[in-house]
Amino acid sequence: MGWCGHLATHLSAHPAMASLLRAAATWGLFPWRGYCSRGTQGELSKGFVEALKAVVGSPHVSTAAADREQHGHDESMHRCQPPGAVVWPQNVEQVSRLAALCYSQGVPIIPFGTGTGLEGGVCAVQGGVCINLTHMDRILKLDPEDFCVVVEPGVTRKTLNTYLRDSGLWFPTQAQTPRSAAWWPRQPPAPMLCAMARCGTTCSTWRWCCLAAGCFTPPAPAGTSGTLGLITAATLRLHPAPEATVAATCAFPSVQAAVDTTVHILQAALPLARIEFLDEVMMDACNRHSRLTCSVAPTLFLEFHGSERALAEQIERAEEISQHNGGSHFFWAKEAEERSRLWAARHNAWYAALALRPGCKGYSTDVCVPISRLPEILVQTKEDLKASGLTGAIVGHVGDGNFHCILLVDPEDAEELRRVKAFGEHLGRRALALHGTCTGEHGIGLGKRQLLQEEVGAVGMETMRQLKATLDPRGLMNPGKVL
Amino acid sequence: MGWCGHLATHLSAHPAMASLLRAAATWGLFPWRGYCSRGTQGELSKGFVEALKAVVGSPHVSTAAADREQHGHDESMHRCQPPGAVVWPQNVEQVSRLAALCYSQGVPIIPFGTGTGLEGGVCAVQGGVCINLTHMDRILKLDPEDFCVVVEPGVTRKTLNTYLRDSGLWFPTQAQTPRSAAWWPRQPPAPMLCAMARCGTTCSTWRWCCLAAGCFTPPAPAGTSGTLGLITAATLRLHPAPEATVAATCAFPSVQAAVDTTVHILQAALPLARIEFLDEVMMDACNRHSRLTCSVAPTLFLEFHGSERALAEQIERAEEISQHNGGSHFFWAKEAEERSRLWAARHNAWYAALALRPGCKGYSTDVCVPISRLPEILVQTKEDLKASGLTGAIVGHVGDGNFHCILLVDPEDAEELRRVKAFGEHLGRRALALHGTCTGEHGIGLGKRQLLQEEVGAVGMETMRQLKATLDPRGLMNPGKVL
Repeated sequence: MGWCGHLATHLSAHPAMASLLRAAATWGLFPWRGYCSRGTQGELSKGFVEALKAVVGSPHVSTAAADREQHGHDESMHRCQPPGAVVWPQNVEQVSRLAALCYSQGVPIIPFGTGTGLEGGVCAVQGGVCINLTHMDRILKLDPEDFCVVVEPGVTRKTLNTYLRDSGLWFPTQAQTPRSAAWWPRQPPAPMLCAMARCGTTCSTWRWCCLAAGCFTPPAPAGTSGTLGLITAATLRLHPAPEATVAATCAFPSVQAAVDTTVHILQAALPLARIEFLDEVMMDACNRHSRLTCSVAPTLFLEFHGSERALAEQIERAEEISQHNGGSHFFWAKEAEERSRLWAARHNAWYAALALRPGCKGYSTDVCVPISRLPEILVQTKEDLKASGLTGAIVGHVGDGNFHCILLVDPEDAEELRRVKAFGEHLGRRALALHGTCTGEHGIGLGKRQLLQEEVGAVGMETMRQLKATLDPRGLMNPGKVL
Repeated sequence: MGWCGHLATHLSAHPAMASLLRAAATWGLFPWRGYCSRGTQGELSKGFVEALKAVVGSPHVSTAAADREQHGHDESMHRCQPPGAVVWPQNVEQVSRLAALCYSQGVPIIPFGTGTGLEGGVCAVQGGVCINLTHMDRILKLDPEDFCVVVEPGVTRKTLNTYLRDSGLWFPTQAQTPRSAAWWPRQPPAPMLCAMARCGTTCSTWRWCCLAAGCFTPPAPAGTSGTLGLITAATLRLHPAPEATVAATCAFPSVQAAVDTTVHILQAALPLARIEFLDEVMMDACNRHSRLTCSVAPTLFLEFHGSERALAEQIERAEEISQHNGGSHFFWAKEAEERSRLWAARHNAWYAALALRPGCKGYSTDVCVPISRLPEILVQTKEDLKASGLTGAIVGHVGDGNFHCILLVDPEDAEELRRVKAFGEHLGRRALALHGTCTGEHGIGLGKRQLLQEEVGAVGMETMRQLKATLDPRGLMNPGKVL
């Protein structure tokens, strides 16, 4: 818990609470049953829905089909499985009471943020209650001298940085975590901060930035996706806002040249704030979608932070390194507006890729390998793509060996869907063979459970199962995911 | 496990193994019993000692009183409780077989590094076998392009950095982790790298630097002290060796001025490599013990890394800030030899403090508070010291609010011992009241179990107990510590 034990702590799935609730149920304190009929993934009983309303108030409970469907899927191609009800708690006490209610009645709990996940983590595979945490969006406490802030789960990165604007501090920004500047968190496109913690990304930098969370369970190595508890608050480490910032793009003749440049920049200990790789397909998509005029070639997006003087030196050395590797001159974005435009394009890569085949769904791979193996796996992946006939664009957090191949798939085309899944599994196994992982940041969710087994082995799986059973003995926290 | 799943993985206390062993014992595969007589903390049976020898070879097992006593205590004032035998395994297979043997016979296992702990973590409170890991001292794999190295638990920081000398990389150095350079690990005086992981310091930076460990169990929030498993290998993150390094000391008129300087330097985002605080008592002790000629005043030790140009700028701004807060001119140590001398003095602070009252033992407190509360707790602690009549010197990892008050105590003086313990508990509670923690890096061990309860509460303790029981169902991993 560290020195942030002052946080509101809530342990929804804790055995102590479970025992209490079992006792309460035995004593007849909960006269109704959660489901109309046990064993079906169906409707929740009227009495149970009334009980949910008694906790959060009628306006904050919905059993409408539209709400349930909207909460049964994320941005991935995993099929929608709607929960029996959606509930919007307003505070930690309500979350606690909701969890108690569900636990006592054996009703699954599925935490929900903004639905931007990519691994089907929010699908209600066994029905249950979706707990949407977006209404808990208060910034609870800012300690500028201690460089930290306590936020509720509904606070987004943008909201937080707007709030921090006059404090001289910030929560580091959008995309990437190069290894040398490891305290930048790697962040998904538009999510809530606590959802990022909830997803339990493998990214150690996120764990580092998240000093404490109002939930005992730490992010597990393979993405807990809300399977161990609900996060009701998080203490985040802040950083001094940089004196100056510049961003640049640089085109390369090959993937190898771009990755070599990255490694050499890291070896030179230049304090990069971000470094992102986009392949030529992705650059083409971004040019069209975000109206850029970049070269259609393997490209690095870079950002440097520091004092004016330090920046001048960093930039000079980085450009030297990149030209040594055959890169183009840097295209600079020094003004805030131009920088925003550049990073917005990178941020919108998912949507740019989707626009390559309108009407299609996206499926993103998420492997991560030691950086030395990155060129070979990228080259192999591009060959596999060509051979498969699938449409895919690549974007990589090249600083730590993580990249995404965004595949476009017609959801009506079962055969294409099968090929896309097979491609993802094949790529996952390739990464494992290179001492990598099947998931750098998106988590396991629904689709990578088999790959997780291959990655951590039987003993690893059994240990995770036992830890899950210890913290969630009835198996009600987001069941069917990860394990 | 991340992308370092290629590590040898060993789960000594894992239930799957436990079941196997229980079965083996039932089947009569282990005909002798571990203890001569159950329930006494005594001698191990001859048959059991022979079995230990069969695993590691006779020269690597000792039941000699001297060896047992040497392994029954660390550098703290906690009383020696020797194990029944000391065993030096040579490789992971032997560790695995030793663990299996002990587990099958219900014999406690106490992992041992270099014995530099300060919380009695190695005391064999229920007897058992001490597993000394110092003979496992190989550097298993260096991946310079991936900035990581895999080491066995007996590798020390110095050995590793000597090994890395020509690679252009290093494992960041001795002492402190200021918040702005958070990827430097904070390190105890002279321990083995894996012992640092084993201790499970609360220091998030250490977790960050340790990419993977050959043991499933992650360092827990309050110091696991070998209570969850044995670490047989760790993958460490390396960093480019800095182009240039300078160190400096600076004396201040007050504790407040020194801490203010630290906060202002952090706010200015100057990439400090280390920043350490020593009070006037400690400075006096270091002057004598390490033949320095520093002012006897609250003092900061600082170190900056970077390019020559960047350093010039950093130094200038840091000196400006410190003088603004009433600090002296910086005393610079630019040459490697001079720097080493300075940091050796800081490193030897523990021994310098011990030399203040020859023949006495040391007791180190280890509280950590939000940095904004550091001046008040330091001032209060110095007042308490004066009122108590105890001798104590203070050294602080001021960058993140952690400091140690090293108290000198005559081990024959029961009354003084009582007062020292009371002082430590009082300080721990003061830190908790300021939203701090009773342990910044030394762990809970034997002496802080009560404070841990006050810090994490009943639910936190119960959760830890349950997780411990899941991973170590027979309670044989370093029993009697932490929980």
